[in-house]
Amino acid sequence: MPIGIFDSGIGGLTVFKSIAEAFRNIDIYYLGDTARVPYGNKSKETIIRYSAECGTFLYHNYKIDALVIACNTASSYAYDVLKRILPIPVVGVVLPGALSAVRVTKNKKVGVIGTTATVRSNSYLQAIKTFNEGVEVYQKACPLLVPLVEEGWIEGTITEAIIKRYLDEVIEKGIDTLILGCTHYPVLRPVIKKIYPQLNVVDSSDGIVEYINSLGINTEENAVRHILITDESPSFQTLKDLLIGDVKTEKIELSDLCSL
Amino acid sequence: MPIGIFDSGIGGLTVFKSIAEAFRNIDIYYLGDTARVPYGNKSKETIIRYSAECGTFLYHNYKIDALVIACNTASSYAYDVLKRILPIPVVGVVLPGALSAVRVTKNKKVGVIGTTATVRSNSYLQAIKTFNEGVEVYQKACPLLVPLVEEGWIEGTITEAIIKRYLDEVIEKGIDTLILGCTHYPVLRPVIKKIYPQLNVVDSSDGIVEYINSLGINTEENAVRHILITDESPSFQTLKDLLIGDVKTEKIELSDLCSL
Repeated sequence: MPIGIFDSGIGGLTVFKSIAEAFRNIDIYYLGDTARVPYGNKSKETIIRYSAECGTFLYHNYKIDALVIACNTASSYAYDVLKRILPIPVVGVVLPGALSAVRVTKNKKVGVIGTTATVRSNSYLQAIKTFNEGVEVYQKACPLLVPLVEEGWIEGTITEAIIKRYLDEVIEKGIDTLILGCTHYPVLRPVIKKIYPQLNVVDSSDGIVEYINSLGINTEENAVRHILITDESPSFQTLKDLLIGDVKTEKIELSDLCSL
Repeated sequence: MPIGIFDSGIGGLTVFKSIAEAFRNIDIYYLGDTARVPYGNKSKETIIRYSAECGTFLYHNYKIDALVIACNTASSYAYDVLKRILPIPVVGVVLPGALSAVRVTKNKKVGVIGTTATVRSNSYLQAIKTFNEGVEVYQKACPLLVPLVEEGWIEGTITEAIIKRYLDEVIEKGIDTLILGCTHYPVLRPVIKKIYPQLNVVDSSDGIVEYINSLGINTEENAVRHILITDESPSFQTLKDLLIGDVKTEKIELSDLCSL
């Protein structure tokens, strides 16, 4: 009873790590669409098409019993479509992250940071309002944070200055909770907590683990961990080594995805 | 007698601008492959395939008489293939940039900055050595500079700190000339000159204009400027407005490229 996870590329490895640690006896297949990363600067139609290709590829080839969309851009634009076209439970990162924030905030003021596309989609804003209409939401697109993580500059004066330049204006609104609305960002949690120690910093991992738990998926001995990528990528390798360690990685052809 | 220019996305607009200003009476077609940008983190095979698709698309659809590869990654990996498959003059950015640097350097020490893929290809190193084997070359990959330009942070303390972090070690080698080995970087020329006022900073534009001039292309009144992109892109729009102004932009289908 395997779980499938896909991301436009690399960031979803933080979600893979959380799920793999929580469910040591469930097979996990991760697809990183490294040939077409990033999705964040693509149009809505393109993001939906790419996401549908990734989800159906995992479903048809690996008989997955649940799909995790470990990409905020894809979750923002393609969650509804994937739920409709796949006959299995689908969970994105937006609803679990929004729910965590609504539970944690005391003063009902929540900040959201993410890629330009995620922020423009207003998906976190809408999700938070669905859970609690009284919560005020302040969003901020932070396009430099992904390349910063992929460059490995996850601490130091430049990293702190960039984070402060993006976040100070959100902090000034009086938020007590910040959603990391991009799966790259958990790597920056320590430096964000260093700059703003009082801030509650939440991401989607806890909520996703809780959701998967609720599905009651059968476990087995010697669970498989398998990582697929659509193109070789040095920064994928770097973050995989940093977060995951020794898991088999296989390159698949992009045409295998597109032909579905 | 039109000229075709292609880039993986946005940066080539700096080359478009130089060519359009130098040749006011030549039709120019620019293709930005914004659906698949960036090429810099793709494998060699993928870069060659995408570049071949862009070049042949412009040749077949717009009867171009010369092709400019306005992308350092594509020039580094796909220049030879494009020269072989197209029956028209092809010019990349690597040879003109390398030639400018060899002409300008006094102490025969040249720095090259670019994306990870461009630096790894050693294409500038090899080109410089071809022109003058005695020139010492120091290369440095600067992956954060492209997102920095696309974010519009082209000056200020963070931008200066990032440039110094990348460039100080190259400057310490004693270079007197720096090649901007990425078509995004000319936008950063003022801040680089501010930090290192003695440095000769060269890019490929002058050499490309000289090359096109040597082709003796017929000119005409009311020259056409036409920009094609494979996906809507807010950062493309931003840089286009900044550099080029009011030129018609048309979205084409990626499948039109791939079907060739």
